[in-house]
Amino acid sequence: MADKQELPSNWGRWGADDELGTLNLITEEARARGAAEVRTGRAVSLARPIRPAPLVSGPFAPTTGDISPVQQLMQYTGGAPATADMILVTNHHVHSTHLDALGHQIRDGRIYPGRPLEESVTPAGVRHGSTTAFAAGIATRGVLLDLAFDGPLPTGHPITPEDFEAAEARQGIQLESGDALVVRCGWAYTIDPERPMPGIGLDAVRWMHRRGVSLYAGDLGDAHPPFDPAVPGPLHRVALPLLGMPLIDVAELEELAAVCAESHRYAFLLTVAPPRIHGLTGVPVNPLAIF
Amino acid sequence: MADKQELPSNWGRWGADDELGTLNLITEEARARGAAEVRTGRAVSLARPIRPAPLVSGPFAPTTGDISPVQQLMQYTGGAPATADMILVTNHHVHSTHLDALGHQIRDGRIYPGRPLEESVTPAGVRHGSTTAFAAGIATRGVLLDLAFDGPLPTGHPITPEDFEAAEARQGIQLESGDALVVRCGWAYTIDPERPMPGIGLDAVRWMHRRGVSLYAGDLGDAHPPFDPAVPGPLHRVALPLLGMPLIDVAELEELAAVCAESHRYAFLLTVAPPRIHGLTGVPVNPLAIF
Amino acid sequence: MADKQELPSNWGRWGADDELGTLNLITEEARARGAAEVRTGRAVSLARPIRPAPLVSGPFAPTTGDISPVQQLMQYTGGAPATADMILVTNHHVHSTHLDALGHQIRDGRIYPGRPLEESVTPAGVRHGSTTAFAAGIATRGVLLDLAFDGPLPTGHPITPEDFEAAEARQGIQLESGDALVVRCGWAYTIDPERPMPGIGLDAVRWMHRRGVSLYAGDLGDAHPPFDPAVPGPLHRVALPLLGMPLIDVAELEELAAVCAESHRYAFLLTVAPPRIHGLTGVPVNPLAIF
Amino acid sequence: MADKQELPSNWGRWGADDELGTLNLITEEARARGAAEVRTGRAVSLARPIRPAPLVSGPFAPTTGDISPVQQLMQYTGGAPATADMILVTNHHVHSTHLDALGHQIRDGRIYPGRPLEESVTPAGVRHGSTTAFAAGIATRGVLLDLAFDGPLPTGHPITPEDFEAAEARQGIQLESGDALVVRCGWAYTIDPERPMPGIGLDAVRWMHRRGVSLYAGDLGDAHPPFDPAVPGPLHRVALPLLGMPLIDVAELEELAAVCAESHRYAFLLTVAPPRIHGLTGVPVNPLAIF
Repeated sequence: MADKQELPSNWGRWGADDELGTLNLITEEARARGAAEVRTGRAVSLARPIRPAPLVSGPFAPTTGDISPVQQLMQYTGGAPATADMILVTNHHVHSTHLDALGHQIRDGRIYPGRPLEESVTPAGVRHGSTTAFAAGIATRGVLLDLAFDGPLPTGHPITPEDFEAAEARQGIQLESGDALVVRCGWAYTIDPERPMPGIGLDAVRWMHRRGVSLYAGDLGDAHPPFDPAVPGPLHRVALPLLGMPLIDVAELEELAAVCAESHRYAFLLTVAPPRIHGLTGVPVNPLAIF
Repeated sequence: MADKQELPSNWGRWGADDELGTLNLITEEARARGAAEVRTGRAVSLARPIRPAPLVSGPFAPTTGDISPVQQLMQYTGGAPATADMILVTNHHVHSTHLDALGHQIRDGRIYPGRPLEESVTPAGVRHGSTTAFAAGIATRGVLLDLAFDGPLPTGHPITPEDFEAAEARQGIQLESGDALVVRCGWAYTIDPERPMPGIGLDAVRWMHRRGVSLYAGDLGDAHPPFDPAVPGPLHRVALPLLGMPLIDVAELEELAAVCAESHRYAFLLTVAPPRIHGLTGVPVNPLAIF
Repeated sequence: MADKQELPSNWGRWGADDELGTLNLITEEARARGAAEVRTGRAVSLARPIRPAPLVSGPFAPTTGDISPVQQLMQYTGGAPATADMILVTNHHVHSTHLDALGHQIRDGRIYPGRPLEESVTPAGVRHGSTTAFAAGIATRGVLLDLAFDGPLPTGHPITPEDFEAAEARQGIQLESGDALVVRCGWAYTIDPERPMPGIGLDAVRWMHRRGVSLYAGDLGDAHPPFDPAVPGPLHRVALPLLGMPLIDVAELEELAAVCAESHRYAFLLTVAPPRIHGLTGVPVNPLAIF
Repeated sequence: MADKQELPSNWGRWGADDELGTLNLITEEARARGAAEVRTGRAVSLARPIRPAPLVSGPFAPTTGDISPVQQLMQYTGGAPATADMILVTNHHVHSTHLDALGHQIRDGRIYPGRPLEESVTPAGVRHGSTTAFAAGIATRGVLLDLAFDGPLPTGHPITPEDFEAAEARQGIQLESGDALVVRCGWAYTIDPERPMPGIGLDAVRWMHRRGVSLYAGDLGDAHPPFDPAVPGPLHRVALPLLGMPLIDVAELEELAAVCAESHRYAFLLTVAPPRIHGLTGVPVNPLAIF
């Protein structure tokens, strides 16, 4: 495996107790840059719809085999003039647009920024590096780099800094420190051994590090199968645990790309406001690009 | 019970199949009014923090009795260099800032805008009037009317149109059609028979109807115990099922009130973007007021 | 609908507070009759195996669509030299051998023996007529009446007292008061509109009432579709709520029938000992026929 | 830690694929010995009652903090003339009488009889050493050794072979190979640092091994705190993983002891028949002692 020494890292950069990671890069200036993009208030969702499956099957519910990140159970309300339900949510799911917390990935037995796993993650929840860091919401400038402007990326394509810089040139925009990077590959996320996914390469992560990306959101992220078995996931195994960069997995970017292309505007205010639940390893999220 | 004829109603106003209710009032103009309030990008959360309780107790988790809208279960990840968990969420909970869908309340065996309950709400989920209507996110101008500017409202106070109009005058702002109304009573939501909560009166609901409120968010909503047993909840039993007005229950407004008072600005862009889950009766939400 | 007056009923027979129903018929004598059948200790299970489905899908668990009465979640045990899991059980499920409590079925808004539903069944559990009645276990003589001795019952066959009495004669055994009646139709329980299931007829329930059956267990029970829409389920809509007869749904009887046929013995000690959980509407069970 | 070489072990005794462990000792002869004890059919439960807690709290369910191994959720049945519920069960819980499967405990990264953990226990369930071994039910002779005949065992008492043999002499009974050993200490299972529990000592496990115990059930089992930090749990860390002996934790033995004392009979047919669920690490159980 590539030596950690050679890999980009923010361990220690914001102190040993830091839980924000690259969200530290969202300065007032970065946020104001996002605010300056708001004109009409049009909001575009970057989330895939989730249709819940019933939690129970049997005589009182359809016998269904749908797989869903969310299972729903209608509650007995005992005569109340109301209906109610509860849901069971799998936080990390390939059919759910979700935000990974920094404690989700382990590097050499440690989580960002170098805290021992066993004192950070317990059977009763995550004590360090959890969704608590996102609980009050995130707002910054988001920039879409549309790598699929003329069609989906080729199978197995490793995304490079050159891809990003070509998109910047083509779109006439420059990613700045504190921006959220939104990357469109033009693929629906599905693991299919016959059709290797494109994905972020390790150099692309180094580029994000240099540029000061605060947050990554993509329709794809790490390739499956991995490009280099020695560094299997540049985003999940390097950017998240070493840079402390939160990741939005399985974003839905088709509508966003259409809106950006039509308006020739690839920047917006990006808001990310999951339910304010502390102590999780991840959480489903509905990011909004506000124009 | 007060005759439905006398009660304000939007049944039929936007057709028999409508699922948006008063969100129909959020026109492009209303949204642009919200967008115009965005300057620095500062985002203030209107959600109370939720600390999940472990779903299981026993030798591998603390034996705890904490009540929480969210129960969490850490997953066995079988050697993967990652951590993961799932959560069980009670959608309607007095300790959770949540958004009520229109199908949550039943009026004369029907839900907004007059659909029979049994065809709308099934053991396998909500077919009409569910969170599907909110799935792509809501953005509009939000206006805080701070009724607690000089201290919490008195116990058992029924909020009237006069209270709202006095706040408008005091704050120098006018609620317009399509705005989200944010009401601060200065109370933490707790049901205590010894200390009757203040709450929205029926005339205040009529006023919201006249003014074109698209969405209600409050630290309090309906009083407990109810003012009038004949119309026990002006918001939950009238505004939601008859007007089709979505409600954000148990909002956290202390930080928002401080920010508004300090800046003398009581309007903002309000974004509401719960996880994009269809078919629910309600969902926890983290509304952001963006300045 | 057939008038309740005409239907057999035990309401009031053992008092207004009774929760045992026909289990009252298991006298010391009946139990001793069962004990007298025990010789070798060979135990035959009357339960279908349940293979649980994972509660979560996603990167750390197979993405599976199996339907199961039991969903399983492996627990994170955080370094303990142990493994652990939890399960989510649907008590009434067509793939689960389960025992129905008396509060499971409602008759004219009441449960056995005539208690109002709303005071018996609450959002927080069942207060009357629940599995509490079974919690210490059931033991009595069981008698298999094998109606499928020469092949499965015909489609749509309504089982009559004559069927039972022919089996008694054929097998050389007489059902006595307090016995558990085990009925084999030779069918696997599957609802298939093309192939109507046989099932217990109303007269067969009257016969059980006269004979003093304490408990019913069958590979089938009520027919689907029902024979008579006016009395749709003689077992679930008459025997359970009016007689107070607990039902074991979806029993697995193939091994039992083979053992009985081989030994020419159709009686045994039947033990039914679900987990000792109070307050449920039903519970999965593993009945043992002990020879 | 005491060297594994010195510890009693059945690894290899019944082959590398064995999943029964000491249940292999239940021969026809052992079972018939149990059957011979059945006279009246009186059944005594060895399980503690479990009162479920509501799975959800909030406006439609009491806000309760009760800890329970079982959480219950009443189902919305949408007009059906029936009630239904589901339950969430924590298999290993100090308030639940439960049966540990052999895969529940890990010894040097392996489970009985020496299989690697990672191929036996997966995120999707237990592949080897699970409750599948118990699915058809267990029946054998059970013998109560009542160590608390004249009062609860002293705090911190390590149970020895001498204790067992004194009980045999006092009760006039001899444990034989294949018997289930039921041990009463006269304690309710509660972990209280101020009052160290008595528990099984390592020599007592060696004695069980020599005597051919097939199954252990006790009101107590391993002491807390452990007697010897080097071998912290003679039952859970030695008997279960090395001997392959299933354990019934947290048995309720007061009624059994009274019945035995009154009748001067300390042997019975013990049946253990949990729901027939495959692939679990453990399962709640309602063992019956049948006289």
